[in-house]
Amino acid sequence: MSPVLFSHTNSICPAADHQTAQFILLRLQPPLARMDAGEFRRRGKEMVDYVADYLENIEQRPVYPDVEPGYLRKLIPTEAPEDPESYEEVMKDVERVIMPGVTHWHSPNFFAYFPTASSYPAMLADMLCGAIGCIGFSWAASPACTELETVMLDWLGKMLKLPDCFIAGTEGHGGGVIQSTASEATLVALLAARCKSVKRVQASNPKLSEAEICSKLVAYTSEQAHSSVERAGLIGGVMMKKVPTDFNYSLRGPLLQKMIEEDKAAGLIPFFFCATLGTTSCCSFDHLPDLGPICIKENMWMHVDAAYAGSSFICPEFRPLLDGVEFADSFNFNPHKWLLINFDCSAMWVKKRTDIIGAFKVEPFYLKHDNQESGLVTDYRHWQIPLGRRFRSLKMWFVFRMFGIKQLQAYIRKHVALAKEFESLVRADKRFEICAEVVLGLVCFRVKGSNELNQALLKRITKCREIHLVPCQLAGRVVLRFCVCAASTESHHVQSAWQHITQLTFELLQEQIN
Amino acid sequence: MSPVLFSHTNSICPAADHQTAQFILLRLQPPLARMDAGEFRRRGKEMVDYVADYLENIEQRPVYPDVEPGYLRKLIPTEAPEDPESYEEVMKDVERVIMPGVTHWHSPNFFAYFPTASSYPAMLADMLCGAIGCIGFSWAASPACTELETVMLDWLGKMLKLPDCFIAGTEGHGGGVIQSTASEATLVALLAARCKSVKRVQASNPKLSEAEICSKLVAYTSEQAHSSVERAGLIGGVMMKKVPTDFNYSLRGPLLQKMIEEDKAAGLIPFFFCATLGTTSCCSFDHLPDLGPICIKENMWMHVDAAYAGSSFICPEFRPLLDGVEFADSFNFNPHKWLLINFDCSAMWVKKRTDIIGAFKVEPFYLKHDNQESGLVTDYRHWQIPLGRRFRSLKMWFVFRMFGIKQLQAYIRKHVALAKEFESLVRADKRFEICAEVVLGLVCFRVKGSNELNQALLKRITKCREIHLVPCQLAGRVVLRFCVCAASTESHHVQSAWQHITQLTFELLQEQIN
Repeated sequence: MSPVLFSHTNSICPAADHQTAQFILLRLQPPLARMDAGEFRRRGKEMVDYVADYLENIEQRPVYPDVEPGYLRKLIPTEAPEDPESYEEVMKDVERVIMPGVTHWHSPNFFAYFPTASSYPAMLADMLCGAIGCIGFSWAASPACTELETVMLDWLGKMLKLPDCFIAGTEGHGGGVIQSTASEATLVALLAARCKSVKRVQASNPKLSEAEICSKLVAYTSEQAHSSVERAGLIGGVMMKKVPTDFNYSLRGPLLQKMIEEDKAAGLIPFFFCATLGTTSCCSFDHLPDLGPICIKENMWMHVDAAYAGSSFICPEFRPLLDGVEFADSFNFNPHKWLLINFDCSAMWVKKRTDIIGAFKVEPFYLKHDNQESGLVTDYRHWQIPLGRRFRSLKMWFVFRMFGIKQLQAYIRKHVALAKEFESLVRADKRFEICAEVVLGLVCFRVKGSNELNQALLKRITKCREIHLVPCQLAGRVVLRFCVCAASTESHHVQSAWQHITQLTFELLQEQIN
Repeated sequence: MSPVLFSHTNSICPAADHQTAQFILLRLQPPLARMDAGEFRRRGKEMVDYVADYLENIEQRPVYPDVEPGYLRKLIPTEAPEDPESYEEVMKDVERVIMPGVTHWHSPNFFAYFPTASSYPAMLADMLCGAIGCIGFSWAASPACTELETVMLDWLGKMLKLPDCFIAGTEGHGGGVIQSTASEATLVALLAARCKSVKRVQASNPKLSEAEICSKLVAYTSEQAHSSVERAGLIGGVMMKKVPTDFNYSLRGPLLQKMIEEDKAAGLIPFFFCATLGTTSCCSFDHLPDLGPICIKENMWMHVDAAYAGSSFICPEFRPLLDGVEFADSFNFNPHKWLLINFDCSAMWVKKRTDIIGAFKVEPFYLKHDNQESGLVTDYRHWQIPLGRRFRSLKMWFVFRMFGIKQLQAYIRKHVALAKEFESLVRADKRFEICAEVVLGLVCFRVKGSNELNQALLKRITKCREIHLVPCQLAGRVVLRFCVCAASTESHHVQSAWQHITQLTFELLQEQIN
C-alpha cells in the first residue's frame, strides 16, 4: 500500500467510517435550526440596548460583588443542555447568575488596580472584528489585519513622539505590534534579548552551549517592577535580579551599574534590563536618561514597560517622563488601560524588527505564502507567543478617529485632575498622609498609624461595596491605592469616595478608642 | 524628608506639576463631546445590521483579496486626526480601506488552514463581554468571570467525556482554563513539566543547578506536530526532538520508546511529550493508547494537542479518537476552531491544578485578596502567560445553551459529511489522488504528477480568488488541503469548488501538452 493512499477499510477511526452513510443522510435533512441573520438583527439590537443600559446605570450597582467562592456553580446546571434554549432564557440568567458576581470595573466608584479602557467606538470596532473573524497570523491570512496594525502602531508612536527608529513607515527597521498584555511584551522582549545574547556570546566562544550561556545570563529590573517581569525571567529560564530604588521608588543608574559590575566580576553575563515607567504599586518612574546609556555601554537590551503611564505621553506635558526611550530596544504600553481602547490591546515597538523575529521564527510549509520572502510584508506570528490573532487594530482606528488626539489628551488630563483633587483632599486631612508623588491618576495614601489599621480600613471599604480600592506595600508599609479608573468618574464621585473613606476611618478610630 | 512624604516642589515631572492649575480649569469645562449612550444605541444597531449584511452576502465577495503588500498605507493619512471624525466617515472607510484587503474566512468558499469559528450567539456574548469589560486575573477581580469559566470547562469536558480527573467539580484536583491559543497551551504545559522535572531531579541531586538540569531535559513530539510545539521548546529553552511517524503520519509507541532509550543512555532526561490528535498538515492522529503508558513509565508529562479535532469528540462516533487521554497530564483543543465560539477560546485541562500553578506563581501584594488562601478560589493568572484576561466564558455559555449539544454535534457531522463528499469527488477522478485518510473535515489531495504541477495549480486557484486553499507537504510531496471551514458552506459550494479545481487542472494540463 502506498504511504499516501488509503483504502476505506484501513481507517484509523472505524466508528467514523461506519457513520459515513448516516452523515450523507444527515445532509439531506433540513438546515440546522440555529440563530439566523434575521434573529441576530433583532437580538443584536436588544443587546446594544442592554449594553447601553448597563453602562448608563452602572452606578446603581454595588461596585464590588457580595458573593462567596463557589456561588455560581450552585445557580446553573451541571451539564450543557441537549437541546437549544432561547435567547430570553440566557439573558434572564445574565442578571440572575452573572451580574451578582461581577466586579464593575466601569463603575465611577471603581478605584482599584489600574483602569481598563472602555469606549463605545472601541465596542463598535470589536463587533466588526468579530464579524470579519479573520485570524491574522500572516500577511496572506488577511492583509488588511496586518497592514492596519502596522500603520496604527505608527500613528500611535507618532502621538507619543517616539523616536523615528521605532516607526515602521515604508523604510524603517523598527515598528510596532499589538500584544495581548504587557506581560507578554516583557516576555517577548526578554526572549529576543536572550536569543541575541546567546548568538553574540557563541560568536566569540563557539564551544559554549546555549544552556551554558543561559545559565550565566542575568536580567535586571527594579524592585518595584510588576510581578510579570519576574515571571518572564522564570519562563525564560534566566536569572532576574531586583535592583533597589531611591526614596521616590525610582531606579537610578548607580545601583544598576554597581550590580552589573559585581555580576560581571562573578562571571555572569548581564543581558537585559526592564525599566518601568509608572510602577503598579505607586506609579513611580525609573530614570531612563541614566539607565539607558548603561545598557548601551554594557550591550544589554533595554525594555521599557509603561503599561499604565504610557497613554499619558500623548500629552506634551507628560512626554518628558518618556525621555530616554531613545536608548531602549523595545517599548510597551497598554492603550487598553487608559486610552479608551477595550482590552486586549497592548502596544509594543522594537527598534529592529529582525531582533524579535529571529527569536521565534519557525516556518511550516502550510503557512508559507507568495509574498513572505519579498521583505515587504510583516508576518506578525513571528512577533508574539500565540500563533492566532484577532483584528485588534480596528479598535485603535475607530478610537483614534472618533475621538481625535485632542479629546484623548483631554481624557487623560481629566483623570489626572481628578487624582490631584483627591490628593488635595487627603493632604487637607491631618489623619492621613500621601505616600508617593501623584504624577498621573494614582494616589497612594494611608491613615497615619499601623499597617493593621490600614488593613482594617481597607477591609471595611471592601465590605461596604460603595467604592473599590486595593492596597500596595511601600517600604514595608501598607498603603491604599486610589486610582481614577472609569470613564464615567466625575468630581462628585471623588468627593463622595473621600467622604466615605473618612467616615469609615472615623468609625474605626472611634472603635479603637472605645 | 520622609521617604514616603513628598512636597510638590520635588516632582519627578515638573512639567506636570506646572499644569495642575490648568487641569483644574479643564475640569470646569463642559464634559467631553464623545459618543454617548444615545449615539451608541443608534450606531450599535447600524453595526448589527452591517454585521448581518456582511455575513449574509459574504459569498459575493472574492474570498481572497487582490492587493499588493503595502496597499493600505497609501489609502489612509500618515497620522491620527487632531479632531474627531464622524462614525459615517469611519464606516465609509471600512468598505474603501479594510474590506478590499480582507481574506474572508467565513465565506463558504474558504477552504484554507483550519476553520475559525463564528456564530451569532458567540458574537452577542462578545458584545456583553466588551460591556462588562472586567479583567479576570484573580477571583476577586471579578468572581463571575472566574467561576463561569471553571464551570464551562467542566460542561465542555463532560461533553467530550473527558476522564473525571480533568473535571474541577467541587472536589477535583484537575480543571480547565481558557487560553488564547493552542500554542499558549502547549507552552504552558511544557513550562509546567519543566518546573516539575527540575524539582524532581533536584530532590535526588540537590547540587544540580536549574540550568544544568534544563540543559539535559529533552521533549518529544511527532514530526507532523504543529510548528508551535517546536517553538514552545525554543521559548522554554529545552531540546525538542521530532519523532518520525508511520505511513498514516501517526506516531506510535516503539519509535518514541527507542528515542527515549537512546537519550537516557546519553545522559539526557526525557520529561515531556506533546501528542497531536488531528495534525495541521493532514489531520493524522498520534496513537495515545501506545504512547500514554510510555510517558507514565518514564515519568514524562504528556500533553495532548487536539486543536482542530477536539471539537469532534463531542460526537460519540469520534470519541474513540481521544482514547488514551486518561494517560495525559494536560489536554487542549480550540473551540474557537470548530465549535462555533469565536476566537479566542482555547480550552485546556490539567489533571493537577497544582502542577500548572506551581510553574508561574508570583504573588504581588496588590493582587492579594481575602479569599485566595482559602483553597476555594481559582486565580487564573497563575494558569497562563498573560496576566489580564477577558470574560471569554460568556461565549461558551451562550453557544452551549443556544445551540445545545445535539445541534453542535449536527454541525460537526455536517462538515465531516461535506469533506467526505469532496473526497468521493476526488476519488472518482483518476487524475487525482487522496493523500491521507479523511477522518474529519480535511481532505488532502493532489494531482498525480510533479510537485511543480501541484504548486502551479495552487497558484492558479489563489489567483482566481473563487476559492481559497493552502498546501502542505507530506512525505516530500506537495499536497493541497481542502478543509471545510465556514458555517455557511453547503454541498453546492463543495461541488462548485471541485468543478473549479478540475477546470483549472484541465487548463493547466492542456497548456503542458501544448
